[in-house]
Amino acid sequence: MELYEAIARRRDTRAEFTGRPLDDDVLTRILTAAHMAPSVGMTQPWSFTLVRNPATLDAFHAHVMEERQVFADELSGERAETFAKIKIEGIVESGLGIVVGYDPTTAGEQVLGRHAIADAGLYSAVLAIQNLWLAATAEGVGVGWVSFYREPFLSELVGLPDHVRPIAWLCVGEVENLPDVPDLERFGWRGRSPLETVLHTERYGA
Amino acid sequence: MELYEAIARRRDTRAEFTGRPLDDDVLTRILTAAHMAPSVGMTQPWSFTLVRNPATLDAFHAHVMEERQVFADELSGERAETFAKIKIEGIVESGLGIVVGYDPTTAGEQVLGRHAIADAGLYSAVLAIQNLWLAATAEGVGVGWVSFYREPFLSELVGLPDHVRPIAWLCVGEVENLPDVPDLERFGWRGRSPLETVLHTERYGA
Repeated sequence: MELYEAIARRRDTRAEFTGRPLDDDVLTRILTAAHMAPSVGMTQPWSFTLVRNPATLDAFHAHVMEERQVFADELSGERAETFAKIKIEGIVESGLGIVVGYDPTTAGEQVLGRHAIADAGLYSAVLAIQNLWLAATAEGVGVGWVSFYREPFLSELVGLPDHVRPIAWLCVGEVENLPDVPDLERFGWRGRSPLETVLHTERYGA
Repeated sequence: MELYEAIARRRDTRAEFTGRPLDDDVLTRILTAAHMAPSVGMTQPWSFTLVRNPATLDAFHAHVMEERQVFADELSGERAETFAKIKIEGIVESGLGIVVGYDPTTAGEQVLGRHAIADAGLYSAVLAIQNLWLAATAEGVGVGWVSFYREPFLSELVGLPDHVRPIAWLCVGEVENLPDVPDLERFGWRGRSPLETVLHTERYGA
């Protein structure tokens, strides 16, 4: 698939998973794409823990449902009604969770490009996720990023050591199709803004 | 360009800029790709401040050179010698800096997907950078991410308001070519690791 087509067709997938297992070669290509991301000081500070055990998927799903309720309880009126219609995850249906971790220790103490900005390492791990997501799109595979969880719960669930921070649970799996329009736009939660609203020249706001 | 080719050919570019100005249409396509990134709760929390003023480029360059020295002073022996050979930026030569900002306030208080993980918004802004970088690669345009700076200096330089965090200075411009091998590998700073080293099954370390 052409790059620009992959960028345009990429969607956060929640309701479309078929549950059929992914081909190993497809999964390897997607993970290889992630691992080719840029990283500060060539630290490659990401990790990918592949979770398929139904008991683990169920446990994470139950936790996410609790956190969904925490957020729902903050809403009222139109916001509450709109949110009620939105499916936020496909943890069990996708059949595969990829837990992305960030490990700041992969390259020792002196990391080229990180002395002034500690989060530069964290940024690197996130870049890998976008590579993964686009590669999945090119393969016709759905990805849904779930962020309704507490980090300590997820760390405990998949045994992340203290120095590895969980930064994402990605539901990854075969899908019937990728939606044309993002769910949050389709259900009226929030729409996309024009490019001009995020562009500035020489100085912010100018 | 095919997605997988863009992922493989993407390089952090520092020494290859020609200084010739980018075509406006090319720049718009690259920025549009960035703006199509996924974002938590459809917040689209990024901003792009385009800096071409030579005085601003010079001022940022001078600051980065100071920070380069701060890092160099931490090194000794082989690390110091290797680092001395590595060019870390093309701020002036590229002719264009794109300051990427993260604004957590674009969507009000109740952000779908951010109540449990405050950094989910920050992650979204980083995803946009990878879209930008891949689109630039497909256009034959170089991108070099500079992280040798202090955030308050950059905020002041381009007038970011207090609620916008600078997360990257990207040198963006026409290049003679994109290097085949990453600079840090070519100069012996650090090499790439096999995919297997970052993969885990069911539990981390298993």
